[in-house]
Amino acid sequence: MVSRSVAPVTSADVAAVHPRVAAHVRRTPVLRLDAVEFGLDVGDASPPLVAKLDLLQPTGSFKVRGAVALLTDPSLSDRLREAGVIAASGGNFGLAVAWAATRLGITATVVVPASSPPAKLDPIAALGAQLVLVDGVYGDAFVEAERRRAVDGVVLAHAYDQPQVVAGQGTSARELLASVDGLDTLLVACGGGGLLAGTIAAVGHRVRVVAVETRGTTTLHAALAAGRPVDVEVSGEAASSLGARRIGAHAWAVRDRLAGTVLVDDAEVATAQQRLWQAARLVAEPGGAVALAALTSHRYRPEAGERVGVLLCGANTDPSSILPTSPRR
Amino acid sequence: MVSRSVAPVTSADVAAVHPRVAAHVRRTPVLRLDAVEFGLDVGDASPPLVAKLDLLQPTGSFKVRGAVALLTDPSLSDRLREAGVIAASGGNFGLAVAWAATRLGITATVVVPASSPPAKLDPIAALGAQLVLVDGVYGDAFVEAERRRAVDGVVLAHAYDQPQVVAGQGTSARELLASVDGLDTLLVACGGGGLLAGTIAAVGHRVRVVAVETRGTTTLHAALAAGRPVDVEVSGEAASSLGARRIGAHAWAVRDRLAGTVLVDDAEVATAQQRLWQAARLVAEPGGAVALAALTSHRYRPEAGERVGVLLCGANTDPSSILPTSPRR
Repeated sequence: MVSRSVAPVTSADVAAVHPRVAAHVRRTPVLRLDAVEFGLDVGDASPPLVAKLDLLQPTGSFKVRGAVALLTDPSLSDRLREAGVIAASGGNFGLAVAWAATRLGITATVVVPASSPPAKLDPIAALGAQLVLVDGVYGDAFVEAERRRAVDGVVLAHAYDQPQVVAGQGTSARELLASVDGLDTLLVACGGGGLLAGTIAAVGHRVRVVAVETRGTTTLHAALAAGRPVDVEVSGEAASSLGARRIGAHAWAVRDRLAGTVLVDDAEVATAQQRLWQAARLVAEPGGAVALAALTSHRYRPEAGERVGVLLCGANTDPSSILPTSPRR
Repeated sequence: MVSRSVAPVTSADVAAVHPRVAAHVRRTPVLRLDAVEFGLDVGDASPPLVAKLDLLQPTGSFKVRGAVALLTDPSLSDRLREAGVIAASGGNFGLAVAWAATRLGITATVVVPASSPPAKLDPIAALGAQLVLVDGVYGDAFVEAERRRAVDGVVLAHAYDQPQVVAGQGTSARELLASVDGLDTLLVACGGGGLLAGTIAAVGHRVRVVAVETRGTTTLHAALAAGRPVDVEVSGEAASSLGARRIGAHAWAVRDRLAGTVLVDDAEVATAQQRLWQAARLVAEPGGAVALAALTSHRYRPEAGERVGVLLCGANTDPSSILPTSPRR
């Protein structure tokens, strides 16, 4: 895979896709959380922590935004109607594409590694998508999807590195800014960087964007260290949602606009998941709680009065997995 | 226990306590759900189902609203400061009182049946409330709380039948009406009827209120059948939150303003819990999903175009309990 140079997705791009996205996905609620409840006491005037609840989206993650943005692109409508869409994924993006395609009457094929657990595959098939199983891992599925695209003329949906998908993911932050005044900083999980790039596009220079990765999923940190996108080894609890091999060209193209990067470890993510349940009875998957973990671990320390938002972006986990022991009341 | 005649709580009462309540608890989000996702296809123009997410409140239920309304009552402030508050409960209300009292610097005692599980008691103690264990069931705990109130001069907090508590619970519906225009019908779970009475007070004649009970928790249905509040046997999955022995005087006082009543069974509640997780990744306890179950079971059938809201009022359950098998994506 060669690093491509791409034109960054812009705020105007996000604004352009937003009506199409909003016609199908939820405008998810914003929840104001007491910073003290999350161990973030930064003085008496501590402003509320603002959480965008994209984990309440259909299919349980923000990925439906990008999937809808792509599948409603007018320039693709003929191809989509005639040949359909193909995506490589055994996870949240595959599910989002299957959901959006069903809703839009588009034929969808999702290429998945045969090693993916049935719990990930059954719902994709249940939505009516054709499942293609390939030996190997995600990369092998992606190669097969690209091969089929070339043969069949179908539209290839990329989980994080297509301009329509990136613009679609940016609609979450765009909604957040429309709902909340005066946000200073937004914490966003980074895997392949589709949500990150879309968020940076959406907020422009109005809000500082901080990217959060886990120690097992470091595409951005590795690329910044190397000075270019490089492949990384993927491991840990967040791998199923943040486990891209390499940062996408779209995220890389806007790296200079990052206000900061944070690394958290899996135990810190688990703590964030538990605190979110204890304080607000929300279930987040590891990748969905990574941004919050930057705060609860104190690896990102807001200044006094800093108004911080987090994108809670996914909930596709066994809900029993978020608790260490018995339910906490 | 003799049926008391009480002056119904009014819309003005709810409005009066709302600023005090809002100073401490969350203004919980409202989520618009696709009725079709819940099997409620009533034609092409099916309006969204509106859900008030009071299950995201601190302590995991709407009960903090009533607890705060009581504990911030100016007429009680001297007694609360000097002698504190006492409540009988092993469940959501005890936890809410402990939470609110801690926050307000008030000494709290919660009398609980010794048979309550540690998972319910530990968090109450962790919040700093004094736990008093008594032999027997909830009724025995209530007798002990009343006895101590007489001796000590502390304020007795009643889970569902005090005007301040009822008015506080009404703030949930009051927020919903401020957020959503044109609601026709609101479905509300009924146990002792505190939330029901507060909701009826809050909405006045603007919205039809339908009370939902389970077949194991029938205080309202039994009272309506008998023509007066009567004791009922309590059983089933919702008993821990809806398991009052008898409808409260405040709910009974407004029975003529009910637009309808619905009974659901435990299996229908479990289905509603599962659908809520599948569609929106929200965890509701059985009592918190009862209102939704009236819809998903089709025991309440909205007319074409009827705009329906549900109060999702509690999430205090082991999250793994909501799923029949493995996680659904």
